Amino acid sequence: MPELRKDPIVGRWVIISIERGKRPAEYSIGVSPKKGGFCAFCKGHEHTTPPEILAFRPDKSPPNTPGWTLRVVPNKFPALRIEGNVDKVAEGIYDKINGIGAHEVIIESPDHEAALTSISLKSVEDVLWAYYYRILDLKKDLRFKYVVVFKNEGDLAGASLEHTHSQLIALPIVPKQVVEEIEGAKKYYELKERCIFCDIIRQEMKSSVRAISENKDYISLSPFAPRSPFETWILPKKHQSAFQPDGNFPMLAEILQRTIKQIDKVLDRPPYNMMLHISPFHDEANEYYHWHIEIMPKLTKIAGFEWGSGFYINPTPPEEAAKFMREAKI
Amino acid sequence: MPELRKDPIVGRWVIISIERGKRPAEYSIGVSPKKGGFCAFCKGHEHTTPPEILAFRPDKSPPNTPGWTLRVVPNKFPALRIEGNVDKVAEGIYDKINGIGAHEVIIESPDHEAALTSISLKSVEDVLWAYYYRILDLKKDLRFKYVVVFKNEGDLAGASLEHTHSQLIALPIVPKQVVEEIEGAKKYYELKERCIFCDIIRQEMKSSVRAISENKDYISLSPFAPRSPFETWILPKKHQSAFQPDGNFPMLAEILQRTIKQIDKVLDRPPYNMMLHISPFHDEANEYYHWHIEIMPKLTKIAGFEWGSGFYINPTPPEEAAKFMREAKI
Repeated sequence: MPELRKDPIVGRWVIISIERGKRPAEYSIGVSPKKGGFCAFCKGHEHTTPPEILAFRPDKSPPNTPGWTLRVVPNKFPALRIEGNVDKVAEGIYDKINGIGAHEVIIESPDHEAALTSISLKSVEDVLWAYYYRILDLKKDLRFKYVVVFKNEGDLAGASLEHTHSQLIALPIVPKQVVEEIEGAKKYYELKERCIFCDIIRQEMKSSVRAISENKDYISLSPFAPRSPFETWILPKKHQSAFQPDGNFPMLAEILQRTIKQIDKVLDRPPYNMMLHISPFHDEANEYYHWHIEIMPKLTKIAGFEWGSGFYINPTPPEEAAKFMREAKI
Repeated sequence: MPELRKDPIVGRWVIISIERGKRPAEYSIGVSPKKGGFCAFCKGHEHTTPPEILAFRPDKSPPNTPGWTLRVVPNKFPALRIEGNVDKVAEGIYDKINGIGAHEVIIESPDHEAALTSISLKSVEDVLWAYYYRILDLKKDLRFKYVVVFKNEGDLAGASLEHTHSQLIALPIVPKQVVEEIEGAKKYYELKERCIFCDIIRQEMKSSVRAISENKDYISLSPFAPRSPFETWILPKKHQSAFQPDGNFPMLAEILQRTIKQIDKVLDRPPYNMMLHISPFHDEANEYYHWHIEIMPKLTKIAGFEWGSGFYINPTPPEEAAKFMREAKI
């Protein structure tokens, strides 16, 4: 059973995946995974993944057969285990929880060569619906407090398989970083009675130096203090704390695909990480938090200074990054 | 002038190095730096670095000539600038500080082929003395509140030059992460009237599952909740909040070199980051903080889940890592 362990000084959690228990020789440092070969995510290989949790099947084909346009399956090598109760135990001065959680894969297309930028807008929208349905379902499991939805694109961004997919991990605790973001937003709200994200959107739309693009419902922008060059956020223009369809998924699909196309154009298809930032399950509808998407191209390395300080060094000012993104001919 | 910018929501700082202002095509993703060629850190090339700030010259040779065993020089491409006053300004709802700071390089040996594991114990001790003298000197500059001392070994850990060296960056603010560590330790002290690091050392020496090695004054161990596989901490056994020579540098040099030899043996010379964790300048002598060294081999990738949650997934339990380290034949 994996374990969730808490650093006793700063309260940071880590997942010790005991069952995957890697021995020293199993770390292949700086070696890229093999390209090509058998892919469990491809159409026709449905039996090689764990049974599907959700699938979109316009032809009404039976589960775990071809005919799907999107599939959600449990991760075959999950970081956390779905079975069991959440047991919080002490080990001397330390705290740990047995590694209960859900780890799922959202296979975004049956086609091995597809990418978020090449699939139809309807298919991008379906990816968002899959996120939404899975969050809705996992929320019913009272063991879980939060779900992290993310996408790793490219080997250097941590993707171990090339077939386009997202992942989600449901957790029995709210991560410290999420708590900090929520608390930061709450503090601002207590002071100003305004959502800080709404204020950011207002300021960025007015000055427009860091705004990238917008449509009816959403805006994309370079944040003021980006951790990575070309870090880009997508936010609903109107205040919305929970990730919900009335956030207008067709419009979100449109700006999301456009944004990744811009990143691909400007940086020649860089590896990137995409993260959905949402409220914890117990506090979804509120005045102070504003869900959004963060996309971070993987262009710089996390080194000793970053580990030792929590600072990030970014050699491209967000104002320049936004300009390159705006001017990208996609 | 570079800028320090604060994320308005979570309070995380980033350095925008405007002068280095990298354009998109300048990011060489996944490309390793050229090996060999001219090295500015080598003996005889003293004139190609900025003038030295400190050097150990057993032969009393003049500055910026050969004859040194260790040299400290300003970083030629500093993340922050040394000249100017610290100006804190607002930009709408955002906060920024002009990028004042010191960025120095500690060249640990005149020999291009040397490593922390191959130089004499006396030379390792000299590296620690260099850290100490530079911290002591930078502390006198009232603009600075903290100094981050670190070493990046290997391309994947962010080293852009192969010649063995450490770096330091002095900052006009105490980084959020350092504040969190200090506050965490302080909270524990308020509760228990004991240093949490002293308690960790006590528990680890007693149970010995995560202890790696020790000498008269220091212990090395795998922390309970390591962010990276084989993460290793070195701490003085007796409580000591400030990094000082009465921390016994010969003994520290001995355990530091031994620890890196163990890591090199077990993981076949992996890239790694090493960070000195010390108190901020304004609060050096206290009962609750305990300086230490953290070493993190670079074996896993920071991906969407880590960025989105602040969690880390570690496939090697620290108990197993410590066993491998203890049994390494060095």
